[in-house]
Amino acid sequence: MSLLVQKYGGTSVGSIERIEAVAEKVIGYREQGNDMVVVVSAMSGETNRLAALAQEINPRANGRELDVLLTTGEQVTIALLSMAFEKRGYAAKSYTGGQVRITTDSAHNKARIKSIDNENIQRDLDSGHIVVVAGFQGIDEHGNITTLGRGGSDTTGVALAAALKADECQIFTDVDGVYTTDPRVEPDARRLKAISFEEMLEMASLGSKVLQIRAVEFAQKYQVPLRVLSSFEEGEGTLITTEYEVEDIMEQALISGIAFNRDEAQLTINGVADTPGIAYQILGPISDANIEVDMILQNVSADGSTDFTFTVHRNDYETAFASLQKTAESLDAREVSGNNRIVKISIVGVGMRSHAGIASRMFEYLAKEGINILMISTSEIKVSVVVDEKYLELGVRALHEGFDLTQEG
Amino acid sequence: MSLLVQKYGGTSVGSIERIEAVAEKVIGYREQGNDMVVVVSAMSGETNRLAALAQEINPRANGRELDVLLTTGEQVTIALLSMAFEKRGYAAKSYTGGQVRITTDSAHNKARIKSIDNENIQRDLDSGHIVVVAGFQGIDEHGNITTLGRGGSDTTGVALAAALKADECQIFTDVDGVYTTDPRVEPDARRLKAISFEEMLEMASLGSKVLQIRAVEFAQKYQVPLRVLSSFEEGEGTLITTEYEVEDIMEQALISGIAFNRDEAQLTINGVADTPGIAYQILGPISDANIEVDMILQNVSADGSTDFTFTVHRNDYETAFASLQKTAESLDAREVSGNNRIVKISIVGVGMRSHAGIASRMFEYLAKEGINILMISTSEIKVSVVVDEKYLELGVRALHEGFDLTQEG
Repeated sequence: MSLLVQKYGGTSVGSIERIEAVAEKVIGYREQGNDMVVVVSAMSGETNRLAALAQEINPRANGRELDVLLTTGEQVTIALLSMAFEKRGYAAKSYTGGQVRITTDSAHNKARIKSIDNENIQRDLDSGHIVVVAGFQGIDEHGNITTLGRGGSDTTGVALAAALKADECQIFTDVDGVYTTDPRVEPDARRLKAISFEEMLEMASLGSKVLQIRAVEFAQKYQVPLRVLSSFEEGEGTLITTEYEVEDIMEQALISGIAFNRDEAQLTINGVADTPGIAYQILGPISDANIEVDMILQNVSADGSTDFTFTVHRNDYETAFASLQKTAESLDAREVSGNNRIVKISIVGVGMRSHAGIASRMFEYLAKEGINILMISTSEIKVSVVVDEKYLELGVRALHEGFDLTQEG
Repeated sequence: MSLLVQKYGGTSVGSIERIEAVAEKVIGYREQGNDMVVVVSAMSGETNRLAALAQEINPRANGRELDVLLTTGEQVTIALLSMAFEKRGYAAKSYTGGQVRITTDSAHNKARIKSIDNENIQRDLDSGHIVVVAGFQGIDEHGNITTLGRGGSDTTGVALAAALKADECQIFTDVDGVYTTDPRVEPDARRLKAISFEEMLEMASLGSKVLQIRAVEFAQKYQVPLRVLSSFEEGEGTLITTEYEVEDIMEQALISGIAFNRDEAQLTINGVADTPGIAYQILGPISDANIEVDMILQNVSADGSTDFTFTVHRNDYETAFASLQKTAESLDAREVSGNNRIVKISIVGVGMRSHAGIASRMFEYLAKEGINILMISTSEIKVSVVVDEKYLELGVRALHEGFDLTQEG
């Protein structure tokens, strides 16, 4: 007898018919002998409808009341799904975040879970109920309703799985798993049977939006096996688990996947004095303008001056450029240049830890296609390059083929 | 400094514009130096929309989940109204029934309030907040969400006013007060400045649907002055309070109002043996068919047999008649007759207690108009007569004029 926590997102419960389909799916797992806890989001469109009402009445509505408003969305879904179970002859019981008690801090709209009381749910499971929990929501220690922010239902699922010591947390979504890269760019992209938490975090932070980063972090922290599956198709999905477990499931590939990010822009300031604190003088004003900086490169130069390059989101390019020009004047720099027609391509894989030369293989595959690399950045399990945006598809495909990702690992 | 609890129903908060209007209205009272607690219903149409979703997914949905579903309606309103206050620069805080703690029994869909914790609300009032509470809902001792049944928001308002020792509970609705009779029948009907709890209960049970009977009972039990006002017009409304307070406000009229009920039907069984238990033998089968009996009359007769008459809702007439015919056969009664073209007209007034002859004045006014009385029933502060339905308007007007209700009391 296993205990599964399953999470179904807004699209999966977007209509009465789909809620009924979710009920059928869950019952299928239940009939295989599993205890079932189901976490659901608001019906698709509902959160936006509620947010629009708030916007209409007060564009600067306070966080506490926004949370009171938005949490009604999931509350509707848990009631309807429980009714669907009961119509099919299965005892079910719904829980709001507050009823579970999912205790969070008091940071409305982006609260963090502090603790979960699993007592009520465990009692209902023991007495044969299917338990249905509202995702995305909790309650602070003063009894105020809180939300975990967009996508927080994934986090609810993982946190519940951890608290209940579930065998697996299964996230049902509109894709059937994690792919070696985006199939819209590389039609030969392949669904991964398994991927490690660390790799998934790199993939997610690089723009693969299958799962919320926080949910993966949470799963890693509490070692909760996480599986991504399709709500609409049958299949095993992708298991996200410890590196050790992944190795058990399949031969460790050198590279697990190729992530990319289209919305990059790069800025360079040339010929600034290479003195202590120069990085802060350059990036301080950028950060003050609330612009997030991604890659940062500084080259040593022979003449005592240095070139400093960084990347930002493409939307922030104009603002960052203007700010940097001011800085350049005050620093008496030689020039400021930039490029907002660039993209970032990254290879991700824990295999890098044990295999040398992976980065150079990456550069080789790109060079063969005549792709010029503008910037390079590396971390323990990732190598990222910045290239001209016209090379995105070509670069991804060259790497996908070069690292042999099309073949089952 | 007074403390007012105000309740606004679904029509009063039926759109963003109307919620804003409620905010303005409440702020007006606040600016007069009152502490304000506002109880709101779901936006009009919302409860029906949610009930339809439940109906679609499971026509026999269980009470617990229905309550989880329906209570989201008021939760949306409290958040939006709080936002409207804050936009206008007034600190506000919303409470669900569970957050207040309004503790009820576990009878889902028709729960009864057991206790109210006023501590949180009192603290917010003390710190200058306008407090906004979801009507209609509570929580049982196990943390399950409950509802008080349709119209329960009035009860929430009165119960909160009692718990907070408010100076008045004001129910805002689409009429501007309690009238001497229905103005659609008697255009000269006059709004009452005040009416006693007892009279209001008789009026309400006789079909004047301004207030929920349970809310009035609650107000009477805890001696909470209750005022009915219009959401849309200015005015003093009608104060519902103790007989003693009413006397303070205005000279006690003999009769406070004239209530009537159009949907009556009468059934008679003639010539049954006048033996102990005969009433039960006749009415038992009616009650078993879930038909509510209103008036019951039994006449003594000289020959040892008796005639037995009662009234039911007109919708139940056919079923009751069929049932009574069966009973008549088994009791060997002479005949069964009935009439579903009748109405009930009642005069209500605590003045009856101290003034004899009021009933006979009623009969006199009706006789003058040639109205034949079919049945008579009396209670301490009420006299009801059943007449042919064609006499409804004539009868009400004759009594309204006879008892001089058009003149300010």
